[in-house]
Amino acid sequence: MSHIHYQELDKTPANHIALSPISFIKRAATYFSDMTSVIYHKQKFTWKQTYQRSCQLAHALHKQGIKIGDTVSALSPNTPALIEAHYGVAMAGAVLNTINMRLDNNTIGYILQHSDCKLLLVDAQFIEMATNAIEQNNLSITVIRIDDLHENISSHLGDMEYETFIAQGESDYLWQMPEDEWQAIALNYTSGTSGKPKGVVYHHRGSYLMSMGSVAAWQMPMHPKYLYTVPLFHCNGWGYIWTIALLGGTFVCVRNISTELIFNHIAQHKITHFGGAPIILGMLVNADENEKIKIKHLDYQVKVMTAGAPPPAPILASMAAMNFQVMQVYGLTETYGHISHCLWRQKWDKLTTNEQAEIQSWQGMSFPMNEEIGLMDKNGNLIPYSPSQQEQNGEIVIRGNTVMKGYYKNKKATQEAFNGGWFHSEDIAVWQEDSYLKVKDRLKDIIISGGENISSVEVEGILYKHPAVAYAAVVAQEDDKWGEIPAAFIELKKNFENAPPSLQEIQDFCRQHLSSFKIPKAVKFEELPKTATGKIQKFKLRSSIK
Amino acid sequence: MSHIHYQELDKTPANHIALSPISFIKRAATYFSDMTSVIYHKQKFTWKQTYQRSCQLAHALHKQGIKIGDTVSALSPNTPALIEAHYGVAMAGAVLNTINMRLDNNTIGYILQHSDCKLLLVDAQFIEMATNAIEQNNLSITVIRIDDLHENISSHLGDMEYETFIAQGESDYLWQMPEDEWQAIALNYTSGTSGKPKGVVYHHRGSYLMSMGSVAAWQMPMHPKYLYTVPLFHCNGWGYIWTIALLGGTFVCVRNISTELIFNHIAQHKITHFGGAPIILGMLVNADENEKIKIKHLDYQVKVMTAGAPPPAPILASMAAMNFQVMQVYGLTETYGHISHCLWRQKWDKLTTNEQAEIQSWQGMSFPMNEEIGLMDKNGNLIPYSPSQQEQNGEIVIRGNTVMKGYYKNKKATQEAFNGGWFHSEDIAVWQEDSYLKVKDRLKDIIISGGENISSVEVEGILYKHPAVAYAAVVAQEDDKWGEIPAAFIELKKNFENAPPSLQEIQDFCRQHLSSFKIPKAVKFEELPKTATGKIQKFKLRSSIK
Repeated sequence: MSHIHYQELDKTPANHIALSPISFIKRAATYFSDMTSVIYHKQKFTWKQTYQRSCQLAHALHKQGIKIGDTVSALSPNTPALIEAHYGVAMAGAVLNTINMRLDNNTIGYILQHSDCKLLLVDAQFIEMATNAIEQNNLSITVIRIDDLHENISSHLGDMEYETFIAQGESDYLWQMPEDEWQAIALNYTSGTSGKPKGVVYHHRGSYLMSMGSVAAWQMPMHPKYLYTVPLFHCNGWGYIWTIALLGGTFVCVRNISTELIFNHIAQHKITHFGGAPIILGMLVNADENEKIKIKHLDYQVKVMTAGAPPPAPILASMAAMNFQVMQVYGLTETYGHISHCLWRQKWDKLTTNEQAEIQSWQGMSFPMNEEIGLMDKNGNLIPYSPSQQEQNGEIVIRGNTVMKGYYKNKKATQEAFNGGWFHSEDIAVWQEDSYLKVKDRLKDIIISGGENISSVEVEGILYKHPAVAYAAVVAQEDDKWGEIPAAFIELKKNFENAPPSLQEIQDFCRQHLSSFKIPKAVKFEELPKTATGKIQKFKLRSSIK
Repeated sequence: MSHIHYQELDKTPANHIALSPISFIKRAATYFSDMTSVIYHKQKFTWKQTYQRSCQLAHALHKQGIKIGDTVSALSPNTPALIEAHYGVAMAGAVLNTINMRLDNNTIGYILQHSDCKLLLVDAQFIEMATNAIEQNNLSITVIRIDDLHENISSHLGDMEYETFIAQGESDYLWQMPEDEWQAIALNYTSGTSGKPKGVVYHHRGSYLMSMGSVAAWQMPMHPKYLYTVPLFHCNGWGYIWTIALLGGTFVCVRNISTELIFNHIAQHKITHFGGAPIILGMLVNADENEKIKIKHLDYQVKVMTAGAPPPAPILASMAAMNFQVMQVYGLTETYGHISHCLWRQKWDKLTTNEQAEIQSWQGMSFPMNEEIGLMDKNGNLIPYSPSQQEQNGEIVIRGNTVMKGYYKNKKATQEAFNGGWFHSEDIAVWQEDSYLKVKDRLKDIIISGGENISSVEVEGILYKHPAVAYAAVVAQEDDKWGEIPAAFIELKKNFENAPPSLQEIQDFCRQHLSSFKIPKAVKFEELPKTATGKIQKFKLRSSIK
């Protein structure tokens, strides 16, 4: 009986509002109106200004004919305009498709076409490439050019300049919250490791929950000063585009990343948080002392989030010495960015530096807004956590409200990714203590030699300990006898370039730490191909030895 | 076209899970299994144990025939069992109705009946009252008694003791998450401002979002040590029953609150956070120096949340001197507890102590998970914020996902509360700088005494039953200890004018009908000021006792 009475109570406009991160923008404009939202060079915006400019953009888009569910693409480094684009496009009910501007012309053309892009916001630095891509594909797209007066980057291409465009909109435009929190908010293409990039669709609900979860997981205080080194085209900058609004924080923008800029910005703006691929950490550690000295006076720890290949122990130790607190996170484009983090435990304080570095390389535990992370064996069975099973490999599978809606116009890939009611990451991991995860390898990067699994990540971890090694990548090389054998590609540190170690020396070094079947049978010294964000492009290495 | 493609992507078990705070309990058991969840006297539970005991409770309830949407009531101080009840009852899909055990027998009987309670968990201290209430109302309710071995409180009444009851359940019981996040999770009765108490229904979605929002608003770190001074029967302890699980924190339980206990617990368990009515703050400030000295060595600030009548400036100054950081919050039972907080701004650091105390008494800005707080004039128009309009009174109106589902079995009151698409708080406030709110008065003259709401209408109703009373009005009188106390003004019937009843007589009469905290502490006999139409002018009475 009681059941029925509870059910009688319906949703009303007073007690049910679609979850959407644009709510945080409005709140920031209400309560943090005079606080600084964005800093870029000498320009500073307040939250009131950022909000009003975003309203103008939303209104201008509306006047331009952009409707709910239309795709608006953006091709830009992390500038104030790209921040406004995240807010204004969502306020217009449209879907923001931020594109990696380091991609080649063809791929950008493919994305603009496949995404059904109606309008493109493009930084002047990339407008020539963009207009070429549009012409070559015969696309009908309105092009809004963003000139950068601070860096003297401008052009005459495109239909209109950004400032002229948003001037058409009113700063008090009455935008609407989405009626349905399942409505799409963003479309982010994967890097396309196998074939064409896939369009990952985010919804308002997920972006809202990612913001909330990040505050709890990273233990963020109000008013953080956030250096936006993570490109917004990666999972909308890991969702911090919304999180910082929630917290009334400040974005500090950079067009290009350099150690000098990072140290300068930290010192000048008292940066509290930033994120970066391990390559950024390496750059900071190896920077000149006269750059590092700029942050010597800081009386607080700068929190740094990193993802991807785990940083080697010496890098972590050096980061700690510079008063950086590094936390490893894990996630994919399909999960709105990070959904696990290596939360530090007090009990680990007493371990040695190397033991601590090993733990810091773990991908850790689930973010609070993510529901479940499991490990699945080849037969589709979950591998339960047990401290004694730390060697059983499994695929990371994920359930949660920050898992994508699906792939845009790709039902087959969507169904495969959600097979059995879990999102399949294609990453291989093992359980560590306290149900923490440690990623062993990408499913496709596992090397199977003589029936034995070899984790390329494990071998790379050893290679990184060798004093001459700057970067290392291990891939499978076909072999008549063993099926596959591990082959190593090594980029040497500058001071070893003229005196590289021998194959024998590398193998002897590995032998001290690895089973013999895991020792690279071939070693090649060369500069490694990397993505814009510093990820080593193993597929290029793989094809080079085929 | 793109619109359609975005819509094609349906919800799946991988990417859409009902928001529910019981997710946090499971996560705590997974990742914080060996950490302390609950401390009560010398007993400590880990999160694994608390989770397992909650599973046992859920299973035992299931075996007892409790189904989704059934009401399970609880009448208990903040003990480990009441914490488990929050988790276990929700895991069973049932709705937890925590009852204020300070209420009188009749009101408790009314709530047990009106709530359609199927099973009652009751602390042994209150079982006699509870069984009486059940008998008097001819209710058919299974009674599970909770003995307290730490304080030697036990009984033989009831159908079964709690430990025996949960021993019937398995610790690995496969409970289910709710299918629909709109499903009811809790039923919390208001104090009954006008007539009978109303049953406020919470849903899983709201309790989940309150937890997330509290972390951000109170800037809570991981693993807080939370002294549970706020009764769980108030909005499920302002939602911290879930928040602490989210953060892998520790509850420290107390049966009765005393300054000695609070100082001892803070020192012994290194309490980081607690909440309390202003009366608790007053008690702490006025405590003996030999109690206060116990926390002198603390090297951190204890964060204290307070709600209700704003604490006076000297209290706040003394709290600060003791290294307590006090934050004023505002909310109602209908909003799951707090939905606004007086977030401190750096710019206020330079003000005088009195100016700071004035600001600290503001109800402040919206929590992040709450969507909107507005002020509405008598004509139903929103009063826009403007720094120059700080004297225009308006009713606080609220929109958000932490606004109740509605009142249980009371469609009329539900519709009235949600009139015009806003929840009407019946509290009167004005705007302050930065869109902060300051509550001026309560529409219905609620008296807040020791953190408990007293409806003047209810007390007046009793007074009117006394044979000597012609007219009665009850207003709040300021009180150093209790914040406010109820003061009664009585106009006697003609034939009693020469032989008025004594204060004692009036109080004894009230005691037959009212909980003791509602009994007027002062009574004055006089002709009451009335309007032309005979309405009593309470504001005149209020000013006469200031």
